[in-house]
Amino acid sequence: MDSCVCAALAARDYDAYALHFGYGQRTEDRELRSARAVAERLGFKDFLHLKIDLFRRIGGSALTDAAIEVPKAPEEEAAIGAEIPVTYVPFRNAHFLAAAVSWAEVLGAKRVMIGAVEQDSSGYPDCRPAYYEAFQRLIEAGTRDGGIIVETPLIRMRKREIVALGLELGAPLDLTWSCYSGAERACGECESCVLRLRAFSEAGIVDPISYARMETANC
Amino acid sequence: MDSCVCAALAARDYDAYALHFGYGQRTEDRELRSARAVAERLGFKDFLHLKIDLFRRIGGSALTDAAIEVPKAPEEEAAIGAEIPVTYVPFRNAHFLAAAVSWAEVLGAKRVMIGAVEQDSSGYPDCRPAYYEAFQRLIEAGTRDGGIIVETPLIRMRKREIVALGLELGAPLDLTWSCYSGAERACGECESCVLRLRAFSEAGIVDPISYARMETANC
Repeated sequence: MDSCVCAALAARDYDAYALHFGYGQRTEDRELRSARAVAERLGFKDFLHLKIDLFRRIGGSALTDAAIEVPKAPEEEAAIGAEIPVTYVPFRNAHFLAAAVSWAEVLGAKRVMIGAVEQDSSGYPDCRPAYYEAFQRLIEAGTRDGGIIVETPLIRMRKREIVALGLELGAPLDLTWSCYSGAERACGECESCVLRLRAFSEAGIVDPISYARMETANC
Repeated sequence: MDSCVCAALAARDYDAYALHFGYGQRTEDRELRSARAVAERLGFKDFLHLKIDLFRRIGGSALTDAAIEVPKAPEEEAAIGAEIPVTYVPFRNAHFLAAAVSWAEVLGAKRVMIGAVEQDSSGYPDCRPAYYEAFQRLIEAGTRDGGIIVETPLIRMRKREIVALGLELGAPLDLTWSCYSGAERACGECESCVLRLRAFSEAGIVDPISYARMETANC
């Protein structure tokens, strides 16, 4: 959902190129289908699908290691984001940004955008503003002309504001996939589903995708 | 050569794990053979070979794009490193370090080492100390406990000092591959061969590998 709204901003403001990653996440095939459909609907100039073998090989995250169970969301709302969860994929966003910066250098692109969100997120260390500020310094130190800018337009927004912005931009939220499970319908119970459903509910909008089960009111 | 001497330092000081990348470089198979042999000789605990598809897909470097010719070294010594050459692979070392940091997080390793060298190198922006300082800040901002340290033990050394250190450590320089060409014997003419031959020559040591042609005296 966040990536989709970020993509809608990119398509509005720039000649945008989409980069999507299969990194052995449980929902790899489902996410790819969604990402391609979103990029197509938004009229992106190109769609580059990259596969990262690393996470499947090294394990360490419930998102990429079948031996670690994806937990249901905690009962108490405050518990989400309070500590780094087992779904944290070690240093994942560095791989995403590195690829985007490499491609930007070849294309001559001046901007790299990512839909990272700090608030209402799961406490992932690579979703904080300080992380992207550090990445900006890295680009300045380690690229051909140092001029590529990392933009994180959603990073300080609440999830409900992202839903509202998506609606305003006409972002194709109906094509997105947030669930941590790889089932045909979103589970409605994992942390990612719960955060998404809560966001739609707080924004007063019905989530256009369908759920197997709804722990949170969405009607 | 630099990676091998760095690996010898790692093996001397730590329980070390080797990480090697195939990223579509012309010498991919040859480098892999060398890297495996070096890690085995040095008694590394594991050897992880990762393939990165990105650079072959996006092009932009003479090292990974068959359509761009690898140039011979410039006639004048001072010209090496004066500007960023066509062999620069855009933001390459960020991919290497990101993978090393991800693996370190899973292993619980506290150090990541890379044999980057600023002096006598080819002017690559991702071989400068400032780049690794920026990467250190990125790790502090974006990992589980922020405690992994990037070490670049060779970065301020001259190539001839690296050769001498390799000899002192018993680093298996006979197993290494530096040439940008993928031929069975090192070409002796590309920038990487010329820098290597000059380093051995200045250190007063005979390079243990064999060359198809020698532009620089090594006897």
